[in-house]
Amino acid sequence: MNYLSIKDIDSIEDWVKEARELKQAPLKYKQLGSDKTIGLLFFNPSLRTRLSTQKASQQLGMNCMVMNFDKEGWALEYGDGVIMDQGKSEHVKEAAKVISQFCDIIAIRAFAGLEDKDLDKAEVVLNGFVKYASVPVVNMESSVGHPLQALADAITLQEDKVRLNDKKPKVVLSWAPHPKALPHAVANSFIEMMQRQEAEFVITHPEGYELDPEVVGDSTVEYDQNKAFEGADYIYTKNWSSFREYGKVISKDVSWTISEEKMALTNEARFMHCLPVRRNVVVNDAVIESENSLVIKQADNRTYAAQVVLKKILESI
Amino acid sequence: MNYLSIKDIDSIEDWVKEARELKQAPLKYKQLGSDKTIGLLFFNPSLRTRLSTQKASQQLGMNCMVMNFDKEGWALEYGDGVIMDQGKSEHVKEAAKVISQFCDIIAIRAFAGLEDKDLDKAEVVLNGFVKYASVPVVNMESSVGHPLQALADAITLQEDKVRLNDKKPKVVLSWAPHPKALPHAVANSFIEMMQRQEAEFVITHPEGYELDPEVVGDSTVEYDQNKAFEGADYIYTKNWSSFREYGKVISKDVSWTISEEKMALTNEARFMHCLPVRRNVVVNDAVIESENSLVIKQADNRTYAAQVVLKKILESI
Amino acid sequence: MNYLSIKDIDSIEDWVKEARELKQAPLKYKQLGSDKTIGLLFFNPSLRTRLSTQKASQQLGMNCMVMNFDKEGWALEYGDGVIMDQGKSEHVKEAAKVISQFCDIIAIRAFAGLEDKDLDKAEVVLNGFVKYASVPVVNMESSVGHPLQALADAITLQEDKVRLNDKKPKVVLSWAPHPKALPHAVANSFIEMMQRQEAEFVITHPEGYELDPEVVGDSTVEYDQNKAFEGADYIYTKNWSSFREYGKVISKDVSWTISEEKMALTNEARFMHCLPVRRNVVVNDAVIESENSLVIKQADNRTYAAQVVLKKILESI
Repeated sequence: MNYLSIKDIDSIEDWVKEARELKQAPLKYKQLGSDKTIGLLFFNPSLRTRLSTQKASQQLGMNCMVMNFDKEGWALEYGDGVIMDQGKSEHVKEAAKVISQFCDIIAIRAFAGLEDKDLDKAEVVLNGFVKYASVPVVNMESSVGHPLQALADAITLQEDKVRLNDKKPKVVLSWAPHPKALPHAVANSFIEMMQRQEAEFVITHPEGYELDPEVVGDSTVEYDQNKAFEGADYIYTKNWSSFREYGKVISKDVSWTISEEKMALTNEARFMHCLPVRRNVVVNDAVIESENSLVIKQADNRTYAAQVVLKKILESI
Repeated sequence: MNYLSIKDIDSIEDWVKEARELKQAPLKYKQLGSDKTIGLLFFNPSLRTRLSTQKASQQLGMNCMVMNFDKEGWALEYGDGVIMDQGKSEHVKEAAKVISQFCDIIAIRAFAGLEDKDLDKAEVVLNGFVKYASVPVVNMESSVGHPLQALADAITLQEDKVRLNDKKPKVVLSWAPHPKALPHAVANSFIEMMQRQEAEFVITHPEGYELDPEVVGDSTVEYDQNKAFEGADYIYTKNWSSFREYGKVISKDVSWTISEEKMALTNEARFMHCLPVRRNVVVNDAVIESENSLVIKQADNRTYAAQVVLKKILESI
Repeated sequence: MNYLSIKDIDSIEDWVKEARELKQAPLKYKQLGSDKTIGLLFFNPSLRTRLSTQKASQQLGMNCMVMNFDKEGWALEYGDGVIMDQGKSEHVKEAAKVISQFCDIIAIRAFAGLEDKDLDKAEVVLNGFVKYASVPVVNMESSVGHPLQALADAITLQEDKVRLNDKKPKVVLSWAPHPKALPHAVANSFIEMMQRQEAEFVITHPEGYELDPEVVGDSTVEYDQNKAFEGADYIYTKNWSSFREYGKVISKDVSWTISEEKMALTNEARFMHCLPVRRNVVVNDAVIESENSLVIKQADNRTYAAQVVLKKILESI
């Protein structure tokens, strides 16, 4: 059993329920991972993912080996039949098989390069490990998705929406400006998760920032941010670079920054963001620091999202 | 309860006593930290601090997550109200709150930049975490202080001074030359610790190397190193850059190097240094290798200094 | 007791037997390392060595502290009497003594620089730690040897050669081309290990690639690779740079690449390599992916090689 995308969850409702039970009793399954080892392989920086996944594995009694693959290991080749006489020292075919002998679960973070759309969509690093590893693989953010984040977001939504009683929430995914070109992974997984929720779901962004149509599917896209915000119960904010003009920053329009004025258009919406966040660019101080901000709770739920995933994998092996 | 400076110790005598008891029975409190997690966040290199704090936490049964924040995480912003459209990806307000959810104690190393005195005195990194973390914070060397080192030094002095019977020791903090500009943290914390000891305490350095007057207070400063060394029982050596001409190296005068000739002026003084040390620049081989050198014992006591601090924090939470 | 080279093994046969027993019951000695700490110090990249040594230490119940010394610690000086006013911040004399206080075993990886033959042969890093540490030292690949790899290779050979019944195997160590200058460590330790095995052992390489005569001794060298391969049961492949023209790449002759045609000359030989390996430069895809390739088993046995070494050291302290 792998955890590569939201699609690997059979029932989001059940997983969220189980994660919330783990949050109440984080050490209940401390024997489950005893003498089992997880390897966390980082090809990119990480704060929340690194610490929450370590924490989750410890709470399940696992050994955790963390490796900054890009700095501490060997540059990997992913192509078939390549004559490896350039900069790459090892092929993923060997690396994945070898690490599988040391680890019972392999978790991988490898961001999009944002230069070659086809390469990124192929998720060469993650899928290279999936193809050649002989143990379960967990996606700690790949070029295309960040399903541990989206699962944590589902937990956070479930916890918070009791305040709405049985009203179906309106959830808006809003693009916001950012100085750098960022990947689509968080937005993609959030969309895939929302498409399976009982909710009114709207995506809003400037023209040219359309996400991968294969991900968006028939989800509603509204180009007028103000209109999208009307009646919203949740504003989930994230920057991403252009998908069409792949990896380009085609707008830094600060009128899209999440401000108090924008939030005033909503139905007292809660503000959500996966972090790290650029204050006063993506969101103003007043919004992120308000009582309606859920960002710290989202980060807390990363532990229980990781823990439910690892628990299910441990139970399957 | 935080451990940010020597001022956080209510009784140095009691803490030293407890540390020495831990040294005799390092595993006695192995249940105390069970299922508790400490996060060690490094913004600068570390050998002794890294390994001794890990060791101390393990001896208390804790989980320890180590993170080289500058290399593995996101560049942090510390200012209020900043429009984060430059190089910083995350604000300490989020980072500290988030890490507090994964860790029961946060320990931080962040050296002085030695470019902006006010910025360094404000200890923006350490105090940023103190302000926004919801768990205890430990200083693993900040821009202004290194209280784990000074506590280890207090342990070492206490262990060694039995040879003096009840004589009040003369302890000299001596500047020594160094090719690079170094921070004031070790000297500051040593002074603060010595000011609370029963001892004759003298600081000696070339003119222009006066330390922060707020730290030095009414401690004796003697510009003639030879005179300062007369009758000394302990020579604690450390280089620091100028405080007045902030961060500048204004002298590399090798006549200040700790040599056998210098040590001959003392009362068979023991040589102390926090390490790492530049041999034959700060201190000559013959002195650091002599039987009167305490530097290896000082490093050993780093474990028990850290362990008593963590034990007290664990007991407080 | 140190583990610095194959010479530190009293009986390869006994150690291999014990390693294979550990492979059958990896957790049998989990109490042995309880409350003991191993420090893994890396001065160079590592994948297999890093993870397998961590895994082995965990299976023995040890605490494991990993440190990328070159990135996270201080640049070390190894010379005697040096005036340390240049780039090095700490002397190995202090570092080794200090780390010995935090760790019950120190393991070190420090590759050859391949610029100064005498410096590399002196193994300044490894021997610096051996000289000044007060605890056992393990070689995780030094400038001259890689005895954990060679021990794993001995285990792999022992496991595999049952297929030959009692026939004495013919084992060939073959040089192969590589774009970069590589150290001699793996080849050296493999030779030292093979010289103590019941086997017909042949070394083959182009002229100019003669290894250190002190290591090769009276082992057979055959310059005709095809002739060497005749009747071989094992082809152990490795690139190394010239020893005579120290550290130079004097040939990239692709006729030495291990191909199916080359393997057809053998007695259905098994292919061995320590990894990482450059595919289609050192060895063709068809060979490394064939059923006769033992490379993944070799990597697996790294865990048990490390574990038997650590077990013997733990039993000795």
